[in-house]
Amino acid sequence: MSSSTKEATRSGEFDLIARFFAPLAAPGALGLRDDAALVTPSPGCELVVTSDTVIAGVHFREDDAADLIAKKALRVNLSDLAAKGAKPIGFLHALTLNRGVTDAWLELYAQGLKQDILAYGAPLLGGDTTMSPGPVTITITALGEVPAGAALLRSGAKPGDTVYVTGTIGDSALGLACLAGDLLLPRAERAALTDRYHLPRPRCAAGVALRGIAGAALDISDGLVADLGHMAAASNAAIAIDRDAVPLSAVARKAVTNDPRLWEKILAGGDDYEIAFTAPDGVDAGRAATDVPLTAIGKVTAGAGVTVMANGVPVVLASRGYRHR
Amino acid sequence: MSSSTKEATRSGEFDLIARFFAPLAAPGALGLRDDAALVTPSPGCELVVTSDTVIAGVHFREDDAADLIAKKALRVNLSDLAAKGAKPIGFLHALTLNRGVTDAWLELYAQGLKQDILAYGAPLLGGDTTMSPGPVTITITALGEVPAGAALLRSGAKPGDTVYVTGTIGDSALGLACLAGDLLLPRAERAALTDRYHLPRPRCAAGVALRGIAGAALDISDGLVADLGHMAAASNAAIAIDRDAVPLSAVARKAVTNDPRLWEKILAGGDDYEIAFTAPDGVDAGRAATDVPLTAIGKVTAGAGVTVMANGVPVVLASRGYRHR
Repeated sequence: MSSSTKEATRSGEFDLIARFFAPLAAPGALGLRDDAALVTPSPGCELVVTSDTVIAGVHFREDDAADLIAKKALRVNLSDLAAKGAKPIGFLHALTLNRGVTDAWLELYAQGLKQDILAYGAPLLGGDTTMSPGPVTITITALGEVPAGAALLRSGAKPGDTVYVTGTIGDSALGLACLAGDLLLPRAERAALTDRYHLPRPRCAAGVALRGIAGAALDISDGLVADLGHMAAASNAAIAIDRDAVPLSAVARKAVTNDPRLWEKILAGGDDYEIAFTAPDGVDAGRAATDVPLTAIGKVTAGAGVTVMANGVPVVLASRGYRHR
Repeated sequence: MSSSTKEATRSGEFDLIARFFAPLAAPGALGLRDDAALVTPSPGCELVVTSDTVIAGVHFREDDAADLIAKKALRVNLSDLAAKGAKPIGFLHALTLNRGVTDAWLELYAQGLKQDILAYGAPLLGGDTTMSPGPVTITITALGEVPAGAALLRSGAKPGDTVYVTGTIGDSALGLACLAGDLLLPRAERAALTDRYHLPRPRCAAGVALRGIAGAALDISDGLVADLGHMAAASNAAIAIDRDAVPLSAVARKAVTNDPRLWEKILAGGDDYEIAFTAPDGVDAGRAATDVPLTAIGKVTAGAGVTVMANGVPVVLASRGYRHR
């Protein structure tokens, strides 16, 4: 677009695209020289589309490494696809830079993006590069596909179902607490937790494996309790979980044993990017062939809302997880 | 996502989505209560996907009316689909707000978006709402479909082809000059031009009608000469146009007759959102059943670059159109 008020900058958009992003482009992306990309979904599949924006100083720390920022921006979108049971097709990448961004930053950013494009089989289809006086802002729109009718939704939880989660919960929130100086741990433990904060592991294979098994599913981004609340609301049901059944990493287990107040962060902190799902009464979802452990943490009941029980008593959480603002 | 550095604000993301955007959602958008939307493309079709970001103070004027901002943000994406010969399927809407945005602004914005959703048959599929300390930033990702193999590309221009444009060129750039105080015109003439600047008319029907006729196509956003340069480069060919064949509105014709220096803005100013395309030698594309006039303005030749001729002499342009920065 043209405008009288454009920011001048070091490199033109075409130079940036050609230099850093064109080498990452998929064949359908037309070398990023066109205004749009062509994609052919597999026959009989539905498309799943999702879009997430991350902003410097809001969703990531301004001094986070550029390759980690790129990877997290992509992975939070791949996590949304995973929770739908969808296989990635590719993504569009809208990158808003400012004058403070150096070529070295961009090079590291593109390197991180390339590594994840290969790791997740999610090619770059296109996008837009713009300059702003504001913070670096990244909007990624991911496209995936799922056999028609097989997508996992938030709304399928039914009373009697068992509630499961993939992997472990709370590492990322504890990692952020370490970065913020609120949690002091030995170096190796700290590194294990901050790594989970910087680098979500979207559960792509697990999501596909749960097609036909899970009744409802979502990825945990706002916090376990908050996201189970979204599932309960979308399903017109209640969910009750047993705090002591929630799977923790060894590092998180040790930390919360030393300081039980950390349960709050574990249950409400968010950024887990694990999948929470329900399986119908009688289905042992724990035996699904996933590449990550599945743990039963509770049940769906009639009613509304989420209850967390510990030692037979309801736990009251000060916050119910990150509320989008 | 969770973070320690979130901005506090007046309304939560869920409130904003529920109040302003959920009423606009398509059925596949799952009421915007899910993290992803489901879309079923028509059998035998390829998907066309495109993403464009617009930023307050950069791509639109901060005091532009909110409904016009919404419409322009959507229409520049629909214009990309149109130039590919694609029919819109819908769009994802990533909206980054700041504390300066009022509910009244959002209401007008959502109203504008709704009008265009209906006008263009492009439903809202999903998106993300975030808060930033920076300027209002809108990234729209539009999805369209086209029968497999029928998409129009930039790269199909061949020596001997005729070059055409839809509609009229330069109105938008002259409208921006009016808004910037660089061009003084009577009120009605000014209004006709600024309206073209604020409200692109994506040539959706013309794009579909040109399937099978156009060899190469693109939408004119950076300026007629710059965009023909992109087409020439993608096609490994040269393009020569006759300045006096370029179709102008009556208002633009009068303005440039009074001040021939305005040719520069007309040819290089951009924001036209008309389609430029080529048709093979012997095909009278001017007879294609489009809802907008088609005008032959030049020829494709062997070589490289774009030449503008006027009265048999090459015209030298000071700028070659907006260069993305």
